[in-house]
Amino acid sequence: MARYRGKLSYVGTFFHGWQVQENTPRTVQAVVERALTDICATPVRVHAAGRTDAGVHAEGQVVHFDAPDIAPEGLQRGVNPHLPWDVRFLEIARADPEFHARFDARAKRYLYRFGREAVIAPRDVLFWAPLSPRADAAKMAAAAAGLEGEHDFFPFSTGLAQGSTVRRIFSCQVQEDGPRVTVEIVADGFLRGMARAIAGTLADIGRGTVSPDRIPEILRRADKSLVRAKARPRGLTLAKVFYEDFR
Amino acid sequence: MARYRGKLSYVGTFFHGWQVQENTPRTVQAVVERALTDICATPVRVHAAGRTDAGVHAEGQVVHFDAPDIAPEGLQRGVNPHLPWDVRFLEIARADPEFHARFDARAKRYLYRFGREAVIAPRDVLFWAPLSPRADAAKMAAAAAGLEGEHDFFPFSTGLAQGSTVRRIFSCQVQEDGPRVTVEIVADGFLRGMARAIAGTLADIGRGTVSPDRIPEILRRADKSLVRAKARPRGLTLAKVFYEDFR
Repeated sequence: MARYRGKLSYVGTFFHGWQVQENTPRTVQAVVERALTDICATPVRVHAAGRTDAGVHAEGQVVHFDAPDIAPEGLQRGVNPHLPWDVRFLEIARADPEFHARFDARAKRYLYRFGREAVIAPRDVLFWAPLSPRADAAKMAAAAAGLEGEHDFFPFSTGLAQGSTVRRIFSCQVQEDGPRVTVEIVADGFLRGMARAIAGTLADIGRGTVSPDRIPEILRRADKSLVRAKARPRGLTLAKVFYEDFR
Repeated sequence: MARYRGKLSYVGTFFHGWQVQENTPRTVQAVVERALTDICATPVRVHAAGRTDAGVHAEGQVVHFDAPDIAPEGLQRGVNPHLPWDVRFLEIARADPEFHARFDARAKRYLYRFGREAVIAPRDVLFWAPLSPRADAAKMAAAAAGLEGEHDFFPFSTGLAQGSTVRRIFSCQVQEDGPRVTVEIVADGFLRGMARAIAGTLADIGRGTVSPDRIPEILRRADKSLVRAKARPRGLTLAKVFYEDFR
């Protein structure tokens, strides 16, 4: 047996998220484990850097798994045809036996894509969430900068706190390209629901229904009731996971 | 009642083509007619400029239909939420009562998208068909130019000839962008299967399995057996339909 690391790209729309669950067979983890188990002829368990929610996409999800000792290029060529169209291994490489996709991750980059068009074309609609045509991207960008640094992001998370809810956002930027507005967040970790709560709050600030002062207020008061918006999953993509030795 | 023209965008992957067929309810025509019939509360029949095959996409399919006399903007806002995610009206406008989406069309632009990457990411895989990494786009472009002009395109068509098979290709160009190769064909009309047969033949020329001399030979001898390749539907998109007075 040998340890491998792999980079996965998937369209999250038709999956019930990453993680294997009882009675919801179509999760990314389930289809990837089934494909690897099929071609390795031995049960393979796959561990991801980030457990993306239902409907959330990935362009650079990183996983590790143990499998028989064969050439990683052959493994990649072999496994991809066993996967459904909406998930692919972009890379498979041999990893250090101690490599752990989640514990070794130093940072992750998430993108949230908004489209301000009156009608988002079907080709884009799985990846771009609608945003009011009136939304002001410059206001969103200014508010986003206020999230950078080390803060307790508990108010932006879903559910109860388990362990520390302090995270460091290295950068939170808003790019505008015609009607398109992309929020890019790079952080050392993301609480459950955090990326979507940030995107939803920035959208409300852009639309003018929430004041830009809300961001420092949320961070100061650590009050969950101040965070009401959670952007829908379809706009969110896990773009990249950063490691010390591996990109 | 009034006549309307509409511009439709759809992802063809999950449709059995444009045209309503017995026992295959999920065609683009069927879902669009059902949505319009629902909101107009009267049966609406929709006529398209081009009857795209199963799996073929559209970014600018044009249709006409007759429906009760209401504001076209209201009709568009009303109908889109009744459509599944993979089809949308980008525009609806009032049309001359004589306007006919198919008979009045002066030209159509089709795009065929090839990707030469080792692995095409899921996000792109519905729209970009795989092509050998060795394929030479410059060779494809040179061969494509030989298709321009008025010719009998019968050898590039599927099935038997019905009426004239002479068409004029205004331009047939190949654009290269990194690993991506796009074939753009603008013609006064397309025979059934013609765009995919042209794209497939150009792919074979790019890969070097067919000589560039094959194109003039096909056009001179009008011999169907010389056209063996038909590129798969997923790479093909009806990009635009041109009319004299309407773009």
